Amino acid sequence: MASANGKTRRTHRLVVLDGGPRRKSVGEVWLVGAGPGDPDLLTIKALKALQTAQVVVHDGLVSDEILALAPPEARRISVAKRKSRHSYSQDEINRMLVAFALEGLTVVRLKGGDPFIFGRGGEELEACRDAGVDCHIVPGITAALAAGASAGAPLTHRGSAQAVTFVTGHASQGAEPDLDWASLARPNQTVVIYMGLSQATAIAARLMAAGRAASTPALIVENASRADERRVVATLAGLAEAASALNGPALLIVGEAMALATSGEQVVETLIREAQS
Amino acid sequence: MASANGKTRRTHRLVVLDGGPRRKSVGEVWLVGAGPGDPDLLTIKALKALQTAQVVVHDGLVSDEILALAPPEARRISVAKRKSRHSYSQDEINRMLVAFALEGLTVVRLKGGDPFIFGRGGEELEACRDAGVDCHIVPGITAALAAGASAGAPLTHRGSAQAVTFVTGHASQGAEPDLDWASLARPNQTVVIYMGLSQATAIAARLMAAGRAASTPALIVENASRADERRVVATLAGLAEAASALNGPALLIVGEAMALATSGEQVVETLIREAQS
Repeated sequence: MASANGKTRRTHRLVVLDGGPRRKSVGEVWLVGAGPGDPDLLTIKALKALQTAQVVVHDGLVSDEILALAPPEARRISVAKRKSRHSYSQDEINRMLVAFALEGLTVVRLKGGDPFIFGRGGEELEACRDAGVDCHIVPGITAALAAGASAGAPLTHRGSAQAVTFVTGHASQGAEPDLDWASLARPNQTVVIYMGLSQATAIAARLMAAGRAASTPALIVENASRADERRVVATLAGLAEAASALNGPALLIVGEAMALATSGEQVVETLIREAQS
Repeated sequence: MASANGKTRRTHRLVVLDGGPRRKSVGEVWLVGAGPGDPDLLTIKALKALQTAQVVVHDGLVSDEILALAPPEARRISVAKRKSRHSYSQDEINRMLVAFALEGLTVVRLKGGDPFIFGRGGEELEACRDAGVDCHIVPGITAALAAGASAGAPLTHRGSAQAVTFVTGHASQGAEPDLDWASLARPNQTVVIYMGLSQATAIAARLMAAGRAASTPALIVENASRADERRVVATLAGLAEAASALNGPALLIVGEAMALATSGEQVVETLIREAQS
């Protein structure tokens, strides 16, 4: 399964990508994408990295099933965001990763999705570089790819989606996100909004005000790839109402190619039942 | 490794994502992302699907190492694009997938990267739906994620990359790609151009003409994640010259966050040697 006899050919590579982490006298940090939730959507490389971890520093979105793949003796530290009590700041996380590595440990920083798509992996990488700590990156299936796969909705599609853009709906202190609405409103492209559920009303209004057709197909996927995944198919005009039926981590996807998306009768049934109760 | 005891909770799902393909009396098609090339960047789910394939229909970009993961008895069919002799048209590929499935076979359509990011997976999915053939999608690590990981360059980054857009530089009959240059020229976003190497001169000129700073950091990654990966770090002004040193499948990435990218001395040495020879 590992790539065979590649060692001698790897003269152009800075980062050794196969074989997983190697123990060294000084520790190192692996920024590992855990994918969207389904443990089967881990890459083999992420699994290998996890299996050699001495410390796992993980987000709240990483499931117990995935955490169970690390060695039993590995220390596990959750840095999940919590509204009610102390959350680790990004600076604290950065310092923690560096401190463990300088102790000589192999640290796996396990992040939902991909470390470099709205994962703040770049900041952790910079902290490691500044401290002289080796930092390796293992990409992961970002939620948009999983959502498209689940719904049967291509993010690019001949004739209706020539480009795809990932943005974040997250904004400081509940403000509306500051996005380039004019660009996002152009037709024949897919717009994926991460962390946009709570701002769905404003996002839909802004896109329509900037000229995106109200009839543009839209899709919301909550907990993409997980056992409790839910999907709603809507139009841009109906996005806000559709969003109000969901409450978990969700992606909003807007674009002509979302016309191919399936929600599924069970999802619709669930939503109707919830709306009636 | 498989997700445990999830069966009874999967009431909201249309597509059973774990456990891999199930044999049925009628065949089915699995559109599987093979990732960027390193076999360790396959997902576990892709590996499981591949291991149950009776027919594998694959692109030229899928490596022999990955094809070797299918059962020895599985029929392997390359639909690689060839300039010199007959290539399969997309219609022919669509019909082939459907025909094998209607024969009762489990067909894995194995595509480089992710099936839904410039992979024409949507067209194959539609062909299956039209024919009443079940079609399942397994997402893959798209080249942009692998390139960012290899280079240590985040595609989104606090303060310098609030969004990331994937476009294709491919255009019919050697024409310049028809992209939304004004949108792509805005600062503080990452633009990833798939299949853009041969159009690098025009792409860089258009972006600068539309206002993107000539000093914007840029990165080219050829054969991301493979043993023969090569990376070049440049600026937008130097993109065309940097591109001229490469010739394999490559991504162009333009954006402020590419300032974090590493090329590596060995890459530079290689390029200098090639330029002198």
